[in-house]
Amino acid sequence: MPAQVLGREKKEVTFPDMRFFFLPEAPPTSLGLWTPPVDLMKHLRALRCGDGVEFLLLDLEQNAWLAKTSGRAQIELLGDTQPPSHKLHRIELATAWPKQKRAEELMIRACESGVAVIQPILYERSIFGRDPLSKKQLARLKKLARECCQQLGNVQLPEIRSQPISLAKWLEQSSSSTRICLRPGASALSDLWSGLKTEAIEFLVGPEGGFTDDEIQATDAAKIQAAGLSPNILRIEAAGPMAAGICQNLALSRMRHHP
Amino acid sequence: MPAQVLGREKKEVTFPDMRFFFLPEAPPTSLGLWTPPVDLMKHLRALRCGDGVEFLLLDLEQNAWLAKTSGRAQIELLGDTQPPSHKLHRIELATAWPKQKRAEELMIRACESGVAVIQPILYERSIFGRDPLSKKQLARLKKLARECCQQLGNVQLPEIRSQPISLAKWLEQSSSSTRICLRPGASALSDLWSGLKTEAIEFLVGPEGGFTDDEIQATDAAKIQAAGLSPNILRIEAAGPMAAGICQNLALSRMRHHP
Repeated sequence: MPAQVLGREKKEVTFPDMRFFFLPEAPPTSLGLWTPPVDLMKHLRALRCGDGVEFLLLDLEQNAWLAKTSGRAQIELLGDTQPPSHKLHRIELATAWPKQKRAEELMIRACESGVAVIQPILYERSIFGRDPLSKKQLARLKKLARECCQQLGNVQLPEIRSQPISLAKWLEQSSSSTRICLRPGASALSDLWSGLKTEAIEFLVGPEGGFTDDEIQATDAAKIQAAGLSPNILRIEAAGPMAAGICQNLALSRMRHHP
Repeated sequence: MPAQVLGREKKEVTFPDMRFFFLPEAPPTSLGLWTPPVDLMKHLRALRCGDGVEFLLLDLEQNAWLAKTSGRAQIELLGDTQPPSHKLHRIELATAWPKQKRAEELMIRACESGVAVIQPILYERSIFGRDPLSKKQLARLKKLARECCQQLGNVQLPEIRSQPISLAKWLEQSSSSTRICLRPGASALSDLWSGLKTEAIEFLVGPEGGFTDDEIQATDAAKIQAAGLSPNILRIEAAGPMAAGICQNLALSRMRHHP
């Protein structure tokens, strides 16, 4: 833990005051010149950052470092710091899986809507996503997520679970979140909002062909509430992120009233 | 007007009971065998529609025809009918323009969120969209919109205005809609909702670099309310459709309470 190595007090930094970049792993030291991954140097050059511009580095375990630009191949680490806080509502998607190009779109939209976890679910009518995501697919989705979150100022990278689970298995898992099944024609999500008892929400998103009658019965038996989003029928990559985006807006509103 | 040619009573058809397809222009007759555009026959084959399957044809002027499949090259027109009604809230986007690939994404998301009109706006910091959309760009966006709306069951094709206008000109135009400027950090859109006085809403979406101080002053002087969407900073193609999607959900809720 770099924090302990240094033993100095952590500075608090608030986004969006300062740009940040994700690192695939922690730097070997917290202080001094360091040659970071090539991607990061490319980014800094693309942004035309001159010498001495400060920014944050974040790893995937909530560690953060302050750094500044220093020449074309290295950066200077200025010590570890508090990871920036975010004001996102905790939202997980348990979702049918679209095919590759549209899975990338799902990832991008999930970053925009501040989704915390994406869990692929297998339904009777699932066409894609029957196998675990390959290493290559996962790496591609993670790279997209890092780039997208950096650009949007979203410090919460969505966690992607590569192993799909069946609806039955998902229903068996205990969860401390409120689970909501997205179903066209059900009451509007914004109507359910004020009655929700937990801060965290998990949305269940069905496959293109819709839930089967058995699947509907199983979610009803598990007392999962249903919510509708729009008069339009949304595709997989649109539905979950739209639900999450609506919640983030309703949560902003709640924060204003009960800060 | 095919309705007058025939002089028979219009049948009422409700979506989503029946599939529909958009036609670039009205068929020459309302009754009998007709060879439609090749695209439509391809669609019907891709959907594996056998003979005798009924569907709707819609032109871009709110006319509708009932038709059924009849062989591989022709369809049978069964007369004109009421265009299906939709339950979308009326939302217009006055938006900065992203570059081509992302303009396509904007179009798709606008269809999903039930946007009625897209008007490109020129800002001081606009990078793309300074020229009118070319015929080719416009045709591409319209084709995407038709395909997307058909798939989502959205009978309201968004109207795209190909000529960008400056923010100043937009502010001068009179409008019967409530105009809302999307600004990061402003009160949540869902907070403004209950106080809105008109059914129709126009969202103003700024460029990637943000509004200039002068632009903020101009929208404030025009007494345009500001609203925020999310703790994340959204890109052009995400912001307007997200705002529209939030409104469609809040409107669903309003309909339930005051049907």
